Amino acid sequence: MKTFPQSVQKLIEHFSKLPGVGPKSASRMAFHVLNMPKESALDFADTIREMKENVQFCNQCFHLAEGPLCSICQDAERDDKIMMVVEDVLDLIAFESTGEFGGRYHVLGGVISPVNGIGPEELNIFSLFKRLKDSGVVQELIVATNPTLEGEATAMYIKQELVDLGNISITRIARGVPTGADLDYADRSTLAKALSGRIQL
Amino acid sequence: MKTFPQSVQKLIEHFSKLPGVGPKSASRMAFHVLNMPKESALDFADTIREMKENVQFCNQCFHLAEGPLCSICQDAERDDKIMMVVEDVLDLIAFESTGEFGGRYHVLGGVISPVNGIGPEELNIFSLFKRLKDSGVVQELIVATNPTLEGEATAMYIKQELVDLGNISITRIARGVPTGADLDYADRSTLAKALSGRIQL
Repeated sequence: MKTFPQSVQKLIEHFSKLPGVGPKSASRMAFHVLNMPKESALDFADTIREMKENVQFCNQCFHLAEGPLCSICQDAERDDKIMMVVEDVLDLIAFESTGEFGGRYHVLGGVISPVNGIGPEELNIFSLFKRLKDSGVVQELIVATNPTLEGEATAMYIKQELVDLGNISITRIARGVPTGADLDYADRSTLAKALSGRIQL
Repeated sequence: MKTFPQSVQKLIEHFSKLPGVGPKSASRMAFHVLNMPKESALDFADTIREMKENVQFCNQCFHLAEGPLCSICQDAERDDKIMMVVEDVLDLIAFESTGEFGGRYHVLGGVISPVNGIGPEELNIFSLFKRLKDSGVVQELIVATNPTLEGEATAMYIKQELVDLGNISITRIARGVPTGADLDYADRSTLAKALSGRIQL
């Protein structure tokens, strides 16, 4: 189909490479950009350029940053004694949005997955060990990888590697039934975890 | 949440304005752009800019064009005697992809919809009448607006306005059961149209 002008065709291709976007939605998105005011579209383009030029990963925790250190690592108010390990930045953002955690983070950039050829050396895992040893003040490390097979395996790997740093308590986020869930729709594994992890009222 | 660098936040907002994109998908898209090679991202940005600067609507049929006339209007090979009226450019593209139509097009840019305050003057409809009168060679006008209430009303409006141009035959695309459909899942209106529009085998 050579009926689209070339730049429209190219924009459709760019949109269709985004996660969850098929060719039909990509066309609709390109048309939306075509119909939006010129300033908005140019601002859209500039934002992509600006982001790619300014945003990098924090040298310390691998969160997004506009300089060598991210806003969380720069924040002197946060508690250095507690650190949370997450798979990716979106998980960090999810925990931040609860407002319940005031410690530091460490973003792994993924999970150990032998099937996909991802070992510890592909992740920010050795930098985590180094960071813990160098700092010496962390008392609790919360491992908040996803409750998947690979997330659990990564959590176990971290625990084993840190055995000799006996002074750090390593914890795992709780598993159980999510808020608002319907118990008879919950899977067996979730119910079993909710039962074994029951707490005193 | 001020945890995202500003440009990332801004890109998420841009993505979330696209059709069918919620805040979660918008974040995932922004992260995808963040992780893609720098050249691809900058090319994405440049494509938006280039499209907004080069693409306009064809002066004659209102299809997309990179100059005053679109590729279809410029194509001397196409049949001037038959013209198809469509709601938007995506419909034109859909018909072009069948390879079954070799005539000219006219893109309305929408449908008459009193509820949404859209009358004929908001559409490229008077330019259609003028184009038909000026050219004088069109023998058949296929009205291919969508088979919706508003699409049908727009088709009827066009037919009524063109009554005095008696030499043009005005046709409507066929309605019936779509290819591959399961008859017992078809709605009553579709089945009724399929029955009343039956053809000789």
